[in-house]
Amino acid sequence: MSRFSLPQDPVFQQLNTSLGYDRRLWPHDIAQSRAHATMLAAQQIISEDERDEILRGLDEVAAELEGGAFDFEGGDEDIHMAVERRLTEIVGRAGGKLHTARSRNDQVVTDLAMFVRTEADATARLATDLATTLIDVAEAHLDWPLPGYTHLQRAQPVYLSHHLLAYVWMLLRDRARLRFTADQASLLPLGAGALAGVNFDTDRRLVARELGFDGVVPNSIDAVSNRDFAFDLLHALSVCATHLSRLGSELVIWSSEEFGFVTMSDAWSSGSSIMPQKRNPDVFELLRGRTASAHGCLVEALGIFAKLPSGYQRDLQLLKAPLFRGIDLALASTGILVPAIDAMGFRVQHIELDPAIHAAERANELVVREGIPFREAYRRVGAALAADRAAKPETGQDPS
Amino acid sequence: MSRFSLPQDPVFQQLNTSLGYDRRLWPHDIAQSRAHATMLAAQQIISEDERDEILRGLDEVAAELEGGAFDFEGGDEDIHMAVERRLTEIVGRAGGKLHTARSRNDQVVTDLAMFVRTEADATARLATDLATTLIDVAEAHLDWPLPGYTHLQRAQPVYLSHHLLAYVWMLLRDRARLRFTADQASLLPLGAGALAGVNFDTDRRLVARELGFDGVVPNSIDAVSNRDFAFDLLHALSVCATHLSRLGSELVIWSSEEFGFVTMSDAWSSGSSIMPQKRNPDVFELLRGRTASAHGCLVEALGIFAKLPSGYQRDLQLLKAPLFRGIDLALASTGILVPAIDAMGFRVQHIELDPAIHAAERANELVVREGIPFREAYRRVGAALAADRAAKPETGQDPS
Amino acid sequence: MSRFSLPQDPVFQQLNTSLGYDRRLWPHDIAQSRAHATMLAAQQIISEDERDEILRGLDEVAAELEGGAFDFEGGDEDIHMAVERRLTEIVGRAGGKLHTARSRNDQVVTDLAMFVRTEADATARLATDLATTLIDVAEAHLDWPLPGYTHLQRAQPVYLSHHLLAYVWMLLRDRARLRFTADQASLLPLGAGALAGVNFDTDRRLVARELGFDGVVPNSIDAVSNRDFAFDLLHALSVCATHLSRLGSELVIWSSEEFGFVTMSDAWSSGSSIMPQKRNPDVFELLRGRTASAHGCLVEALGIFAKLPSGYQRDLQLLKAPLFRGIDLALASTGILVPAIDAMGFRVQHIELDPAIHAAERANELVVREGIPFREAYRRVGAALAADRAAKPETGQDPS
Amino acid sequence: MSRFSLPQDPVFQQLNTSLGYDRRLWPHDIAQSRAHATMLAAQQIISEDERDEILRGLDEVAAELEGGAFDFEGGDEDIHMAVERRLTEIVGRAGGKLHTARSRNDQVVTDLAMFVRTEADATARLATDLATTLIDVAEAHLDWPLPGYTHLQRAQPVYLSHHLLAYVWMLLRDRARLRFTADQASLLPLGAGALAGVNFDTDRRLVARELGFDGVVPNSIDAVSNRDFAFDLLHALSVCATHLSRLGSELVIWSSEEFGFVTMSDAWSSGSSIMPQKRNPDVFELLRGRTASAHGCLVEALGIFAKLPSGYQRDLQLLKAPLFRGIDLALASTGILVPAIDAMGFRVQHIELDPAIHAAERANELVVREGIPFREAYRRVGAALAADRAAKPETGQDPS
Repeated sequence: MSRFSLPQDPVFQQLNTSLGYDRRLWPHDIAQSRAHATMLAAQQIISEDERDEILRGLDEVAAELEGGAFDFEGGDEDIHMAVERRLTEIVGRAGGKLHTARSRNDQVVTDLAMFVRTEADATARLATDLATTLIDVAEAHLDWPLPGYTHLQRAQPVYLSHHLLAYVWMLLRDRARLRFTADQASLLPLGAGALAGVNFDTDRRLVARELGFDGVVPNSIDAVSNRDFAFDLLHALSVCATHLSRLGSELVIWSSEEFGFVTMSDAWSSGSSIMPQKRNPDVFELLRGRTASAHGCLVEALGIFAKLPSGYQRDLQLLKAPLFRGIDLALASTGILVPAIDAMGFRVQHIELDPAIHAAERANELVVREGIPFREAYRRVGAALAADRAAKPETGQDPS
Repeated sequence: MSRFSLPQDPVFQQLNTSLGYDRRLWPHDIAQSRAHATMLAAQQIISEDERDEILRGLDEVAAELEGGAFDFEGGDEDIHMAVERRLTEIVGRAGGKLHTARSRNDQVVTDLAMFVRTEADATARLATDLATTLIDVAEAHLDWPLPGYTHLQRAQPVYLSHHLLAYVWMLLRDRARLRFTADQASLLPLGAGALAGVNFDTDRRLVARELGFDGVVPNSIDAVSNRDFAFDLLHALSVCATHLSRLGSELVIWSSEEFGFVTMSDAWSSGSSIMPQKRNPDVFELLRGRTASAHGCLVEALGIFAKLPSGYQRDLQLLKAPLFRGIDLALASTGILVPAIDAMGFRVQHIELDPAIHAAERANELVVREGIPFREAYRRVGAALAADRAAKPETGQDPS
Repeated sequence: MSRFSLPQDPVFQQLNTSLGYDRRLWPHDIAQSRAHATMLAAQQIISEDERDEILRGLDEVAAELEGGAFDFEGGDEDIHMAVERRLTEIVGRAGGKLHTARSRNDQVVTDLAMFVRTEADATARLATDLATTLIDVAEAHLDWPLPGYTHLQRAQPVYLSHHLLAYVWMLLRDRARLRFTADQASLLPLGAGALAGVNFDTDRRLVARELGFDGVVPNSIDAVSNRDFAFDLLHALSVCATHLSRLGSELVIWSSEEFGFVTMSDAWSSGSSIMPQKRNPDVFELLRGRTASAHGCLVEALGIFAKLPSGYQRDLQLLKAPLFRGIDLALASTGILVPAIDAMGFRVQHIELDPAIHAAERANELVVREGIPFREAYRRVGAALAADRAAKPETGQDPS
Repeated sequence: MSRFSLPQDPVFQQLNTSLGYDRRLWPHDIAQSRAHATMLAAQQIISEDERDEILRGLDEVAAELEGGAFDFEGGDEDIHMAVERRLTEIVGRAGGKLHTARSRNDQVVTDLAMFVRTEADATARLATDLATTLIDVAEAHLDWPLPGYTHLQRAQPVYLSHHLLAYVWMLLRDRARLRFTADQASLLPLGAGALAGVNFDTDRRLVARELGFDGVVPNSIDAVSNRDFAFDLLHALSVCATHLSRLGSELVIWSSEEFGFVTMSDAWSSGSSIMPQKRNPDVFELLRGRTASAHGCLVEALGIFAKLPSGYQRDLQLLKAPLFRGIDLALASTGILVPAIDAMGFRVQHIELDPAIHAAERANELVVREGIPFREAYRRVGAALAADRAAKPETGQDPS
C-alpha cells in the first residue's frame, strides 16, 4: 500500500493477519481465481495469453501449497494475499491483473460459501454413515428387550433396536439441516466488489456455473457482509452435537458397572494412571462434552456479527475461527463414532425387565377389559404396586 | 396420584408447575384434544356419546380460557392437566377417557409442534411486512446518493435504496429459515405415548389430517424427546435478530448529529429527564440490544438438552421459557419496525459525498484507459490522494 | 416532555416501558429517594419543609406499592418515573424538586447496585443453609462406604460423607464469589447525573452513608454505564448453578433402579400420567436443566453490553431481564434443595463395593512391600484382574 | 497399560490425546514434578539418590522442551505422560517412581491452577499498563472539551480526559477480578490422588510452599474436579473484553469521517485492495469483535462442566481449549492497545460543541435563579429549543 507514508507496524501486522486460520481455504481460493481469470478473458478484460499465464501460475501455486513447499511471508495478511503475491512472483505483470473486477471482500465471502457447501456435504455424508452403522447395530439386536426410560426411571419395555433407531431419526434431521445450509450457500457473491459492484462488464453467471453455484447474489452490499450460511452450518452442527451428546451421555451411563448394558473393547478405552482395573468410556465422555464446544462456536459467531453496521467490517474475519473449529469438531465426532460403535458390545443378561415396567400395559388392559376410564385403571394398578412395596420393606436404609 | 402415600409437598408443586409458562398453549391443547377425541370415537375406543360430551366440554373450557374465567388450581401441574381437570369437572366420567391412548409426553410435544408451526408462520409474515416497508422506503429514495461504508469509513458511492435493499435480502433469508422451521414441525408426534407407543388400535393419520400435519413421527422414543424444531425456530430468530441489530446499530449511528442522515419523529423518540434537547433513538437501541436476548434464548435451549439421555426428562419442560421469550421478542421487534421506519425521515443534505470516495472508480478508469494492471492504477491514485492530504495539513491536532 | 410536538406513539411507549421488569426495584428506589431528599435539605438545595413533604409522600407511595394499591399508568416508562409521578400527585410541587441534582441514569444504576448487593447477600445465606444441610446429612452417614467414581466407573472406595462434603466446598466457593460481587456494588453511583455530574453543591458521601455504601464512584461517565456487578452476580450464579447441576445429575443417576443409592419421598416426586409405577426425581432434573438457564442469563447480559460506546445507552435497560431471571432461578434452586435433600433417603444395601475397587490400594501396597516402582506394581495388579476376567467369561453378550 | 488385551486403536488415540492443547503447560508440570520429587525424598518415600536422578532428568526434559528438541510420540496422551515417558527414558527406573503418591487427576489440576494464577497475574499487569497509557493520554488532553454522549446523541459537555478515564476505572475493576481469580487458585490440589487421596505419608504443605500455594485443598473429590478458578478467569476476561469492545466500538465511530475525532497513523491502519483512499481502524474493529470470542470461551467452559456427576470425567480435558484460547485473546488484545493508543491522534477542531449541549446546565441555572422545580425549568428550556428548531426549517429532507 505505497500511499501510506509509514510501513505497517509489525505488531499490527501480527494482529491483523488471519493466515493461521484461513490457510485451509486455499483450494477454494485457487478454484475461484481460475474461474475468475477464465471469465475475465471471456469478457476480453484480460487477454487469452494473460489468462493462460495466470492459470499456469495458479497451478504452480496450488502444487506448492499442496506439497507444503509454499513459503508464507510476514506481510501476507491472509491466504488470498499470499496466493496473489506468489502468483505475481511466478508470472509477473499478468498476476497483478487477476485482481481486476474483484475485491478481497467478495473474494473472501466466495471462498467461505464454497467452504461451507463442501463441508456441509461432507458432514451430511458422515451423518449418513453413522446412521447406517446404527441401523446395522439395531438389526443385529432386533428383538433384544430393553427397559425404556423416562426420567432415567424404568418406564415401559422397548426393543434395543427401537431405542437405537431414535438416534437414526435425529441424524436424518441433522442431514436435512445440513442440506438447508448448503442451499443457503448456493448463490455466488463474487462480483459485489468491495460493496458497490465492479466497473467492468463481467459475466457473473459464467463464474457461478464454473464453480457450481446455482445463481448470483443480487445485492452487492448484502453479498459482502452476509455470512448467514456459516451461522446455519454452526447451528446444524450444534443440534447434531446435542444429539450426539445425548448418545454419549447415555452410553456413559450404560457403561457403568451398575447398568452394565455395554462394554467397550480395550482398543477403545483408556485406563487410569493409578487404578489398574479402570476401563473408561472416553469416546462417549468426549462426545458428551463437545456439545458445549459446538454451542460455543455458534454463540461466538452470532456475537461477532451482532450490532455491526451493514457492509464489510474487519470483525468479520474473526468468524473463521469458530467456523473452522466447529466443523473440525463435528467431522471428528461423527467420524469417530462409526468405529467406536462397532467396538462396543451389548450385554443382554445385564438388561433386565422389572415386572413393574408393565404397569402401563396392565392399566390399558383394565381399560379394555372393564371399560373403565384410563385414570381409574391407573389408580388401581398404582395402588397394587404400592401395596406390594409396603409388603416388602427394605432394611438398612434411611427411614423415608 | 393416589398410589403415593404422601401428598406432594406444596414447595415441590410450586417448583414443578409450568403453568406460568405454558398457559398460552391452550388453543393448541384444545384443538389437539378435539382431534384426539374424534379419532378415539372413529376407532370405537370411546363411544360417539362420550366423544360428543368431550367436545362440548372442551368448547366450554376453551370459552372459559378465552374469556379469562378459567379458574386455575394449585395442583394444576401444567396447562394440559388443568384442561383435563376442568373438562372432567364439566362432563364427568367421559372426561377421564380423553387421556386414553395418550400420554402427557406425546401431548406436550404435539402442542409445541403446533405452536412452533404457528409462530414460525406469524414471524415469517411479519418479516414479509417489514421487507415490504423497506422496499417502499427504498422506492421513495431510489436515486439518493449515499456514501457506502466499509469499516465505517466512506468507501464507494451507492444509492440509499440499494443500501436499504440489503436488509430486504436478509429478511428474505430469514423467511426461508422460518419456513424450514415450520417444515421441521410438520410430523405429528401424538401416538408415541410416554415413549413406547400406545396399546390401542388408534389412527394417527386421522389426527394428523385434522391438525394439519403432513404425516406422523415414525419413532416413538424420538417423538417424545425431539424438540429440534424449537432449536430451529430459535436459530431463525437469532439470525433475524442479528440482522435487525445491524440495522438498529446503523440507524443509531445515522441518528447522531455527526452523521445526521436520519431523524426520528417526536412520537417515536424519548427525551432525557434532565437534558431538554435530547431526542433518543430508543427503538433502534433496543433493536440492537435485543440480539443478545435472542442469542441467549438459543444457547439456553440447546444447553437444556445437552447431555440428556434419550427419552423424556423433566428438564425438557424448561425449554418453554426460552422458546416463548424468544418468539415474543421477535414478534415485538419485527412488528415495531414497520411503524418505526415509517416514522423516520432521511435528510439528503446531510449525506455528502467526499471526492475521495470515487478513488476506486478512478483506478478502474486508469486500468481501462491505459491498460495497466489494477494494482498499478491503485498505487497511482493512492499516491495522488496522499499528496493532496500532505498539501493541506490540519492544525489543532495531535502530531501523527 | 412538552417540547416534543407530537405525543409518543402508544406502540412506542409499549416497547419503551420497562415497568414489567423493574417494578420490583421499588423498595430500593424509595430508599434512595429518601436519602437523596435528606441530602438535598442538608445542603439547603431544598427546604426542610419540602424534604418533609417528600418523605411523607414517599411513605405513602411505599405503602401503596407494598399493599398492591398503587395504580400504574400507561405513560409510566419505568418504576422510577411511576414513583415520581405518584409522589407529585400526592405532595404537589415539592415532588418535582426531588429530581434536582439527579438523573434517571444515576438513579437507575444506584437502584441496581442496591439490588445486587441485597440479592448477593440473600443468595450467600441460602448457599450457607444448603451447605449446613449437606453437612448434617454427611454427619448422619459418616462412615457409610461408597464406591468413588471417575468416568462413572467405580474407582476407589470413599465415604458417602466425604463425597457429600465435596459439594459443601463448592458452595463455600460460591459464597466467596457472591461476597466479591457485593463488594463490587459497594460504591454509590448517585451524583453522576446523566453522565457529567450535577451542577449543585451536593454531598454524595452523606447519601452513601445513608444507603450503606462504602464510598462513591469516582468517574461520572463510568458510573452511569457500569453494570459489572451485575455480570459478577450472574457469573457467581452460573458457577453455582453448574455445581448444583452436577449434584442434580448425580442424584438422578443415583435414583435409577440400577444404582438405587437414593430414594425420594412421595411428597417430593412426581408420577406419570400413564405409568402408575413411576416416581420421578423431578427436583434433581430441574436442578440439572437450570444450569443452562443460568448460563443463558450471563451470556445475554454480557452480549447486551458488548460493543456499546461508553456512556448510557437505552440497551442497558434490557439487562434487567436476565438479571432478575438469573437471581430468581438461583433463589428458587438453592432454596428448594434444603427440603428436597431432607426428603431423600440413602439405601446402604444398594451401595456395594466390588473387590476390583481396591486395585489402586493393592498396587500401592506392592510398592511399599516390594520396593518396586508404582508403574510396575500397577502392571502386576492389572494383569491379575485381566486374568480373573478371562477366567469367568460372560455368556449372552456380544463378542468383544 | 499392559493389562489391556488389545492395543489402543490409533483413531481412538488421536481423539483422546490433548497434546495439541496442553503442551504449553510443561513449565508448570516440570516445576510440580520437581516439588513432588523433593517431597517424596523428604518423606523417605523415595531415596535421595532417586530424587537427584529425577531432578537431573527433569532438567534435561525441560531443556529439550524449551529448545524445541523434545520428540513427542504418537502414544503420548498428554503433556504429563510425555514428560514422564521421556524422564524414564533418560533416568530409567527412578523415573517410574515419580508417579508414586500422585495421579494424573491431581497432577493435571495442579498444573492448571498454577497456569491460571500465572496468567491472571500477567493479564492484570497488562491491564495496569493499559490503564497507565490511558492516564498519560488523558493528561495530555486534560482540558480538551468533548461532547459527552448518551444514546450516541450529544448530551452534556465533558473533558476528553474525563471520558478516557472512564475506561481506566473499568480496567481497575478488571484487575480486581483477576486478583480474585488468582486467589481462587491459591490452594494446592496435589495429594488428592485420583479422587480418594493417596496411601502414602506425604507432606502436601511442603509441596504447597515450594510452588507458592497458600495452603492445600481440603477435599480430595472436590480437588480433582474443581475448575472454578478457570471459570473465574474466563469471566474476568469476558468482562474485560466487553470493556475493550466498548472502547473499540467508540474509536471506530470516532475514526469515521463524520465524527473525525481520531486519526490512526499509517503504521496502524490497513487499506483496501481496491479503494486507495481507505485507512481502516482494524485494531479497534478486532477489539470490538473479540468480545464475542471471549464470551464464547466462557459459555463453552461452563457448558463442559454442566451436568457432570462429581469427580473426574474425561470431558474436563476439553476445558483447556477455551481456557487457552481465552487467555491468548486477552493477552493479545490488552497488549496491542498500548502501542495502538499511542499511534492514535485526536483532532480538536473536529470536536465541536453545539449550543444545545448546554441545555441541562441552563435548566439548572433557572432552578437556582428562579427557585422553580427542575421539571418546570426543563420544560421551559425544551420549549425554547423547539421554537428555535421550528424557526430554521431544513430543506431537502423527508417531511417528518
